[in-house]
Amino acid sequence: MTPKPRFSANINTFNAGADRYVLSGYGERYPTDELIQMATRVKGLTGVELVGLWHVNDNNVEQIRRQVADAGLVVTCVTPDIWASSKWGRGSFTSRDPNIRQAAIQEVIKSMEWAKQLDCEVIDLWFGQDGYDYPFQGDFLSAWDRLISGVIECADHLPEVKIVLEYKPKEPRTHCYIATVGKTLLLIDKVNCPNVGAMIDVGHALMAYENTAESAALLQYFGNKLFYMHFNDNWRLWDDDMTVGSVHTIEMLELLYWLDQMNYTGWYALDIFPYRENGIRAAQESILWLQGLHNLLDKIGRERFGAVIASGDSMEASAMLREAILR
Amino acid sequence: MTPKPRFSANINTFNAGADRYVLSGYGERYPTDELIQMATRVKGLTGVELVGLWHVNDNNVEQIRRQVADAGLVVTCVTPDIWASSKWGRGSFTSRDPNIRQAAIQEVIKSMEWAKQLDCEVIDLWFGQDGYDYPFQGDFLSAWDRLISGVIECADHLPEVKIVLEYKPKEPRTHCYIATVGKTLLLIDKVNCPNVGAMIDVGHALMAYENTAESAALLQYFGNKLFYMHFNDNWRLWDDDMTVGSVHTIEMLELLYWLDQMNYTGWYALDIFPYRENGIRAAQESILWLQGLHNLLDKIGRERFGAVIASGDSMEASAMLREAILR
Amino acid sequence: MTPKPRFSANINTFNAGADRYVLSGYGERYPTDELIQMATRVKGLTGVELVGLWHVNDNNVEQIRRQVADAGLVVTCVTPDIWASSKWGRGSFTSRDPNIRQAAIQEVIKSMEWAKQLDCEVIDLWFGQDGYDYPFQGDFLSAWDRLISGVIECADHLPEVKIVLEYKPKEPRTHCYIATVGKTLLLIDKVNCPNVGAMIDVGHALMAYENTAESAALLQYFGNKLFYMHFNDNWRLWDDDMTVGSVHTIEMLELLYWLDQMNYTGWYALDIFPYRENGIRAAQESILWLQGLHNLLDKIGRERFGAVIASGDSMEASAMLREAILR
Amino acid sequence: MTPKPRFSANINTFNAGADRYVLSGYGERYPTDELIQMATRVKGLTGVELVGLWHVNDNNVEQIRRQVADAGLVVTCVTPDIWASSKWGRGSFTSRDPNIRQAAIQEVIKSMEWAKQLDCEVIDLWFGQDGYDYPFQGDFLSAWDRLISGVIECADHLPEVKIVLEYKPKEPRTHCYIATVGKTLLLIDKVNCPNVGAMIDVGHALMAYENTAESAALLQYFGNKLFYMHFNDNWRLWDDDMTVGSVHTIEMLELLYWLDQMNYTGWYALDIFPYRENGIRAAQESILWLQGLHNLLDKIGRERFGAVIASGDSMEASAMLREAILR
Repeated sequence: MTPKPRFSANINTFNAGADRYVLSGYGERYPTDELIQMATRVKGLTGVELVGLWHVNDNNVEQIRRQVADAGLVVTCVTPDIWASSKWGRGSFTSRDPNIRQAAIQEVIKSMEWAKQLDCEVIDLWFGQDGYDYPFQGDFLSAWDRLISGVIECADHLPEVKIVLEYKPKEPRTHCYIATVGKTLLLIDKVNCPNVGAMIDVGHALMAYENTAESAALLQYFGNKLFYMHFNDNWRLWDDDMTVGSVHTIEMLELLYWLDQMNYTGWYALDIFPYRENGIRAAQESILWLQGLHNLLDKIGRERFGAVIASGDSMEASAMLREAILR
Repeated sequence: MTPKPRFSANINTFNAGADRYVLSGYGERYPTDELIQMATRVKGLTGVELVGLWHVNDNNVEQIRRQVADAGLVVTCVTPDIWASSKWGRGSFTSRDPNIRQAAIQEVIKSMEWAKQLDCEVIDLWFGQDGYDYPFQGDFLSAWDRLISGVIECADHLPEVKIVLEYKPKEPRTHCYIATVGKTLLLIDKVNCPNVGAMIDVGHALMAYENTAESAALLQYFGNKLFYMHFNDNWRLWDDDMTVGSVHTIEMLELLYWLDQMNYTGWYALDIFPYRENGIRAAQESILWLQGLHNLLDKIGRERFGAVIASGDSMEASAMLREAILR
Repeated sequence: MTPKPRFSANINTFNAGADRYVLSGYGERYPTDELIQMATRVKGLTGVELVGLWHVNDNNVEQIRRQVADAGLVVTCVTPDIWASSKWGRGSFTSRDPNIRQAAIQEVIKSMEWAKQLDCEVIDLWFGQDGYDYPFQGDFLSAWDRLISGVIECADHLPEVKIVLEYKPKEPRTHCYIATVGKTLLLIDKVNCPNVGAMIDVGHALMAYENTAESAALLQYFGNKLFYMHFNDNWRLWDDDMTVGSVHTIEMLELLYWLDQMNYTGWYALDIFPYRENGIRAAQESILWLQGLHNLLDKIGRERFGAVIASGDSMEASAMLREAILR
Repeated sequence: MTPKPRFSANINTFNAGADRYVLSGYGERYPTDELIQMATRVKGLTGVELVGLWHVNDNNVEQIRRQVADAGLVVTCVTPDIWASSKWGRGSFTSRDPNIRQAAIQEVIKSMEWAKQLDCEVIDLWFGQDGYDYPFQGDFLSAWDRLISGVIECADHLPEVKIVLEYKPKEPRTHCYIATVGKTLLLIDKVNCPNVGAMIDVGHALMAYENTAESAALLQYFGNKLFYMHFNDNWRLWDDDMTVGSVHTIEMLELLYWLDQMNYTGWYALDIFPYRENGIRAAQESILWLQGLHNLLDKIGRERFGAVIASGDSMEASAMLREAILR
């Protein structure tokens, strides 16, 4: 029997979402302890993600550990903030300023330490500001040199904490260096540390015209490097961060099938921006969709999927899915 | 009770599909009479589309009429071929050569007459070659002048045959003049003939980042101008002409809901290119998906959809769809 | 001789740009009077745009009028803010809440009155929040009803102020109702007021896979409805709001050619977000590019462009442009 | 002094281009010897590419060698045809049929041998049909196994001939396995043969939202694996195969800069589809654009580019390019 997924969500899911037009946010803002409480109101949610400095810091780490534990939750990921203030605007690990580079590495290392104190296995390394916007602005070679050496420095610091690279083709830069599953694997390969792997953020992969199922398979094919998953949905061209199940039904099913098939046993974390939705309900819907789709795989039978994929018969796949979805 | 859709398909669905790499086609080629016979083997298919000159001409129109009738089918649409030979390569109605323009109009008029002889209400006017490829190549003003006057000339010729404009943003030109639902309605408005309306080809609308449901609603909002529908699916960025249900489940459901809501009573025609699939099976799958999704609307209840849309509550929509699809 | 373009820019160009990751902005924030002063430091800039409530209100309108005049500038456009706070998050003119709808109309009317007091001809009506994010969320018919009646109400209030509709396919909603040049013209046609027209924001049009030159030609073709222009550049898939000239050279040239050709005599306003750039320099670069490209048209000779377009000879166009750009 | 690029073109450039609508082609078709003659009429063109079986085979290889030499040309690349007939429709190296897989490998080996006989260093391995169209159709693991082992088998056969992998995200499949520069480098790394590298087809990279300059830099960064270049242009979303210089001016300049910077010394080959253009003129325009842009780099001065890139100052880049292009 395939084990059931375990679900997590960034506690910011429950906070007001903002965009470049409504900078003050579409909803209400809450303190961290309330955000943790809100997480407990989502059925099936047993883990939470925290952002370094936003939710956890040197002074409150023990208190946060207790709050999360008291809420019956575990911390599944700490995300160092190396992208949300103007100081990172021209890059973190790839900044042309060595002080910024060193500060970014220190920020990551701090998050690794907080993660360890929180019994959390994973930190999420997203190089959101590391890229370029304009032609003739990117300095590709030094960028890769710095990404490689910086990740090694972090990875060596605390080998028991996993560094999970999160790729994204663009935003906030028009071009990010670590843009695709392929580039992510190249970086992992160069870094060559057992505690460095990748996550797939579903929306980021869709933006890159990747089939998320294929990307998951590749990350496992090249050394079992899929350490974590971020779920959401979008309209394929931008990181809309919508709830799971809102647009893509069948591709999500294909992803879930391959995750099990490739023995992915990590968390199923939500990374959604419910700007105009209630965060608790948005998380709940996402989990219910994921659970429902996962159950559908069992109902149809894994071996039927295996046979269809072995045959490559797209119309057999269509019939199988149609009967399951529309019976 | 909402009436059930009636299904049609271009008989070319059953012929070998070709692309620019495999010009000789991925499958086998059949004569017209066999293509008609193949249509009878698709359960639920009661109509066929024909292409002018390819399948019907002055000499065989009566014979084709009989063959289709004997097969228990009706002709739902005749498509004039004003795009499939090099003579149309630089445009049909908008060609800079007045002889080509006149020839194109004549081709359309011939198809209208064949349609009438075949008791077919609709011809499909697709301006595939009318556009431009390179910067500084398009002559926008004369193009619109010619489109307007050309369509009027055709429409006036046989007012009892409906001319259905099929828009598409690109391919075979990198830019087609009649690219979006908005431009189509502008042309319809200028032409201002009761027998001129539009179809939505689902894939063309997806390529244009249109929500097909919204496009259908608009065509009806602006004077009940949705005369016909072409169904297929794609990956949103190109006219992949895949079978219905293969990628987009929920958007297709939203489209079907709005078609009924806006009192669309025309044909549900397939426009798919099953390059590597069996054409009969591809058509069958598409119809079964459409029927299944249409039934799902009834099962959920139209009034529930109405209430959800009135509220604009996206998570209520999510829950309703999830329960119906994954129960 | 073709008259030279007159340039304007939103004074916010000189303020810190923010996005959903760096909500506090990438640069420094300045008060309105300093922003106006900064505009004077851009050579060739003679106009400014203001945003209602942000820069101008009932209490300061006379003072702003004087400040702008003293700076030797004119106000070219006032943009009512009906999208930058959470109250507009579910729509302005198309909100399901009649109070919000009325408030939005009042906001527009106030901006029209400020515009009049500022001797400014134009207000920019951008329906950024009027659209939907999720399937089954949009209520297309009531949305159009409300857009039409709301615009009429505003237009009738002060017929001497021009209302300029700014279309955009998405952001901040995943789907905006007034998404393309075609839909904009449909709305203009329904509204049918002489003081209602459109602008093209170059980046919005690029996102919609429009050729901006063609869109400009169409807006003039259908009743001289191009009232205003927003210039910027992007990578074609998102509203990156980059400086003019940064990515697309030849398409910008084609647009400038057609603007003159179609007798566009309105302002050439910048709508750029120089997140990580100095605003004054970014505006200056944009104007210098526009001036340089405009001069290039004269150098090549308008009649040569006319001949190339009349012929449709793409390689002749290529040679002409190549010689001009690379001589 | 930077050496000047050497130019090549597939002789098919001069033949009629066809697409899925105009299967018989937009122009005239010519025999191979005439195509070779046509190549001599393009100034600056000193190399030609041939397609296996189409232009060269076991019986005519010596004759072709002589014809090319007599024309004063050299063969720069032989492309095995493993994608242009229905037998390859469901894959070549990744076919589920072992006979097809073996046949594909044999076809490549034959092209390698012809290349050797023609004193040609390079064969172009494009896995156009190796991918999938529908969800649940791709069998990712066996596909990669087969790609790796198949390429090794070919590479080992004739180590003195370079195998150049050509990536493309889609077409003719909706998803190709070797889709991006990242995946290409992963395959190269696994294959690990000194005679296996990659090319960048500019249009394929643009479709994948890659910056071609960055992709070139990466291929060199990871072991000098950029062996060949295919030049063309497009509108960024599809492989339009337009002439160089038609749309993207500045990005092409950035690519040319980085090719020199990364010591790329291979051919600058054209891969254009001048459907409605004269092939000789289209090739000539492309070469003149490339030469002109390359000269512009020298005129501006390589060291100025280096300084701008080192600073990351996008407005300095803008000013430098503007002055060079619009002076």
